Amino acid sequence: MTVKDLSHHLSNESKGRQPSALKTAFKYFGQENMVFLGGGLPLSDYFPWDKITAHSPAPPFSNGIGAKPTNEKDTTVTEVGKVKELDYDVPLGRSLQYGHTEGQVELTDFLKTHTEIIHKIPNKEWDLVLSVGNTQSWEATLRTFCNPDDTVVVEEYSFSSAIETVRALGISMAPVEMDDEGIIPEKLDQLFNEWDSPKPKPKLLYTISTGQNPTGSSLSNERREAIYKIASKHDFIIVEDEPYYFLQMADYEKGASEPPAVTHEQFLAGLVKSFSSLDVEGRVVRLDSFSKVLAPGTRLGWIVAQKKLLERFIRLHEVSIQTPSGFSQTLVAGLLGRWGQDGYLDWLIGLRKEYTIKRNFTMNSLLKHMPKDVVAFEPPMAGMFFIVKIDASKHPKFATEFGKDPIKVETAIYEKSLEQGCLLIPGSWFKSPNFKEHGSTEIFFRGTYAAVALEKLDLGLSRFGKAIELEFGL
Amino acid sequence: MTVKDLSHHLSNESKGRQPSALKTAFKYFGQENMVFLGGGLPLSDYFPWDKITAHSPAPPFSNGIGAKPTNEKDTTVTEVGKVKELDYDVPLGRSLQYGHTEGQVELTDFLKTHTEIIHKIPNKEWDLVLSVGNTQSWEATLRTFCNPDDTVVVEEYSFSSAIETVRALGISMAPVEMDDEGIIPEKLDQLFNEWDSPKPKPKLLYTISTGQNPTGSSLSNERREAIYKIASKHDFIIVEDEPYYFLQMADYEKGASEPPAVTHEQFLAGLVKSFSSLDVEGRVVRLDSFSKVLAPGTRLGWIVAQKKLLERFIRLHEVSIQTPSGFSQTLVAGLLGRWGQDGYLDWLIGLRKEYTIKRNFTMNSLLKHMPKDVVAFEPPMAGMFFIVKIDASKHPKFATEFGKDPIKVETAIYEKSLEQGCLLIPGSWFKSPNFKEHGSTEIFFRGTYAAVALEKLDLGLSRFGKAIELEFGL
Repeated sequence: MTVKDLSHHLSNESKGRQPSALKTAFKYFGQENMVFLGGGLPLSDYFPWDKITAHSPAPPFSNGIGAKPTNEKDTTVTEVGKVKELDYDVPLGRSLQYGHTEGQVELTDFLKTHTEIIHKIPNKEWDLVLSVGNTQSWEATLRTFCNPDDTVVVEEYSFSSAIETVRALGISMAPVEMDDEGIIPEKLDQLFNEWDSPKPKPKLLYTISTGQNPTGSSLSNERREAIYKIASKHDFIIVEDEPYYFLQMADYEKGASEPPAVTHEQFLAGLVKSFSSLDVEGRVVRLDSFSKVLAPGTRLGWIVAQKKLLERFIRLHEVSIQTPSGFSQTLVAGLLGRWGQDGYLDWLIGLRKEYTIKRNFTMNSLLKHMPKDVVAFEPPMAGMFFIVKIDASKHPKFATEFGKDPIKVETAIYEKSLEQGCLLIPGSWFKSPNFKEHGSTEIFFRGTYAAVALEKLDLGLSRFGKAIELEFGL
Repeated sequence: MTVKDLSHHLSNESKGRQPSALKTAFKYFGQENMVFLGGGLPLSDYFPWDKITAHSPAPPFSNGIGAKPTNEKDTTVTEVGKVKELDYDVPLGRSLQYGHTEGQVELTDFLKTHTEIIHKIPNKEWDLVLSVGNTQSWEATLRTFCNPDDTVVVEEYSFSSAIETVRALGISMAPVEMDDEGIIPEKLDQLFNEWDSPKPKPKLLYTISTGQNPTGSSLSNERREAIYKIASKHDFIIVEDEPYYFLQMADYEKGASEPPAVTHEQFLAGLVKSFSSLDVEGRVVRLDSFSKVLAPGTRLGWIVAQKKLLERFIRLHEVSIQTPSGFSQTLVAGLLGRWGQDGYLDWLIGLRKEYTIKRNFTMNSLLKHMPKDVVAFEPPMAGMFFIVKIDASKHPKFATEFGKDPIKVETAIYEKSLEQGCLLIPGSWFKSPNFKEHGSTEIFFRGTYAAVALEKLDLGLSRFGKAIELEFGL
């Protein structure tokens, strides 16, 4: 259970970061009988916000998390002024001031307790630091660990924006093969065993392990354990980018609409184990976010890792983002403080219900509209995305006009579906650089059920099914 | 008046950034009769904030910007829900959603008009993009223009955190000599004319041109014009980091306390010309911020530059910060929209008044407490900082115990002042890397009048004066 020293994985940029010399003076700040004329802080009297009040839905969200409140009991009112009044509030006089790069203590305390409840991280040297969302957390992770000469292992299909972040920094990518359940552990081990590039072995594995983007796949507990062992064997760091972790859904049963109700205990017991929950050695960097759980515009995420590595993130944040918006911190801490850990679980269970309904509806709609002979699909267990897999070789022109190129079939279907009035994203757009073709004739399209009304979703999928039928002459 | 193509100054990282392939699909988003299943947006129904109300002081701030409201007329109430109700409001349904990397249009429109009013930028190809404050804007600027092999010109005394940002990226620094009015233009020209490093000539000049940190100096209009010409001659970019621009104060007169009242026209006419206001060629990158004007915790700044360069910042923001907090954008846009451009000028004039009072008090206090024979000081025209200059050679032990080393005198005074119960920051702590000693025996200490109550400031300066007297045996 000893945390490993992983400082040999730090980038040159990160190794070179030093705390400001001014810090040595700041120890005198607030000291009795010391007039401190050292810092350039504006006076909080001049912050032009005296009080903020926010209206939010209240636990247990009996009518659903999206329901309009019908009475006072349905509403949580967060009211915060410049001065501290409640234990869990971050007063505006502090959140709107400089300081506290790690995040305001009221919010980080809530998140630490939450992390304990959910992940029960086995090493005791973990901590967390706030970020402005997982996009920035991932960029900060790359800057902290990778030199331009380094390589990152990525899922062979991955989130284009995350890939673009790596590419622009001149960092190489080595894709690892996936199946319906995500990364295949044996292929990952093989990648490291057979490493024959002149570049050093990859330092990081980047994985969207739950509700993967774009495939919708989720790694099973068994695979996560296997992957952790491989990380330990080959000494790399696992970066789990987990914005969809709490969009885990109930099992799908054909024709089902709503999921059965669950208690807090059942909900917690049903969650897949995160890599953090397996992290005895301190080699997991977990990127967590409120973007899919509360709202993207909070621009509020947090990075969980062993303390010694986190200290390097803090040094980077001091000279880049500093800390997330004080309004975001005050409003989120105020809301979570009033809801409490139990109320927040109620919210997450409510979210699970909404996503399960949408996922179930999507599966039922796909069963109705997709031509069975050429199309396959699995119910995603988490996240916002589903994929429609198509056997390109069944296209009548596959061997002739398309020269056995599945991508040509993909393009033809994409164009046909646009004509029909429905857009799903072609799977090949998510191929990681250095993608290794494995000779499959299967192509796929990524769809989402997250932000679409159910009738419209059904209309779209009927059009998509029609497009495939027209293309394949069914 | 033609804007120059400065793309040869872009860093490798920045040159390589590409927009996401997914963007080509997003043109179909919102198109009539298209069911768009392409994006992973959460439904705004599930954002747990239905309405936010903020209470702020109201223009014209007759009782001062820090006054508690005494009646309804003194209060501006910003109330924003999920759906748009007022022209200048950013509804929560949009500000808390993904998208709009450049910033919400209501806020950027306000800032563009404000920029027109203040800077009247002579080239017409400028635009602006939001950032999470100047610390991040400066980091983004470095990432956009500099490779590790590059050099940046910095003021010989500069803000330690800005310097640390440069250093950790492996970028070199060439300091330019300053006097009481900041950068000496001739020295800057000389630096480029006599450049003999094997490294390429510097691409950027980094200057805190108004209320400089740490020296409190401000460049005169004449110097700015001269520096702009030098930039044009040697083809470099001027980065003006201007958090203190609106902390410009009225002229100091001995014994004065409050500044005379000014009209909007007088206020605008009295402001020093920014580099942006001289920018016919599009070679200025202006870093602007609400941190000192509204509150640091807004984490809201903006970058003004020619469009072609700004596009590179947007590509970087897409894969890092994305965009500032939606709460910050909604609350700041809501406040500024209600105040209007005129109300905002009232606020800035109110801020000027407060800072002038503090600066005047400080000067009067320094006159009272500083031993005249060894100490000198000038009233700063802008910003939060003043400096106390001391002639180290007048220390009785200068030639003997201190071996003619001014820094030893600085250390002795620092320690003595801590004993007396007052802390100002030693000037040598702000020396840029590669600082060239010019044989002066003058040392200085940086103090601030920003966040300290007046009586305490007076007490602190009396202690500091005492410390100098004790050291110098006066």
